[in-house]
Amino acid sequence: MKIRVATAEDWAAIWPLFREIVAAGETYSYPRDLTYEQGRDIWMLDAPSRTVVAVDTEGEVVGSAKMNPNFAGGAAHIASASFMVAPAAAGNGVGRALGEYVLAWARAEGYRGMQFNAVVESNSRAVRLWQSLGFTIMTTIPEGFRHPTKGYVGLHIMYQPLH
Amino acid sequence: MKIRVATAEDWAAIWPLFREIVAAGETYSYPRDLTYEQGRDIWMLDAPSRTVVAVDTEGEVVGSAKMNPNFAGGAAHIASASFMVAPAAAGNGVGRALGEYVLAWARAEGYRGMQFNAVVESNSRAVRLWQSLGFTIMTTIPEGFRHPTKGYVGLHIMYQPLH
Repeated sequence: MKIRVATAEDWAAIWPLFREIVAAGETYSYPRDLTYEQGRDIWMLDAPSRTVVAVDTEGEVVGSAKMNPNFAGGAAHIASASFMVAPAAAGNGVGRALGEYVLAWARAEGYRGMQFNAVVESNSRAVRLWQSLGFTIMTTIPEGFRHPTKGYVGLHIMYQPLH
Repeated sequence: MKIRVATAEDWAAIWPLFREIVAAGETYSYPRDLTYEQGRDIWMLDAPSRTVVAVDTEGEVVGSAKMNPNFAGGAAHIASASFMVAPAAAGNGVGRALGEYVLAWARAEGYRGMQFNAVVESNSRAVRLWQSLGFTIMTTIPEGFRHPTKGYVGLHIMYQPLH
């Protein structure tokens, strides 16, 4: 598996997994019916932000991440990031490799911390992964997310300093 | 003082106070050099979100607030809001009146909570005001904001349930 910077042409290959994950509505606070173009506008970021793809040995896109300043102005020194892994590739270390990539990117770019604004509490695989990569649950918005089958669950804000 | 829904024509009157507050860089995580058009795109929200102005007895705009879902999809039931009060009108209860307005709006719209994502710790007047209106500091991102004279200060995430 390899991680490389995404080009505009990669969106067509990211879209199927992006659409599946967003339409499921279990982990992302995006409208579940995002169109191809709306998804592209959200996900495909230009420098100084960045979007990458994880590709397997056959060149298939098995995951993607975007990374960006969490806010602007006086808060632009804190990064954020978002991740998508193809459901068929779950458990293969793609999420971990993408997580390590974005942390390395943020350190190299001089960010002083990385914040995740909305990690769904019931997405326990992701929560454990981010904890193992150094993130702390700073707080949980109670009932901050409505899961399609589990009902209201908490929404974690996770953070780690990078300096 | 009266609070009413803003029209597109109100932006010209909001802009001077918006520009002054954003350019000062002490309380907002926006780029300090936002243009008139960029500011308008950030601040002037259409339904179901809303932007309001507070006008004094002479019809002068002395403050403004915007209110909106904090996220979309499964997290769209939590509202957020942002506030600007003309520095010359500080201490006159404009911020409190706008705060009460947005909370009443969020309850009426059926939101289950309201979250402020980035309240600058050193903006103690605002922090105290939001606490007096029922908000709790859920966590503080350490050094999350770089104040132009105080240096790195914390960035609070504040929340209150509305149901």
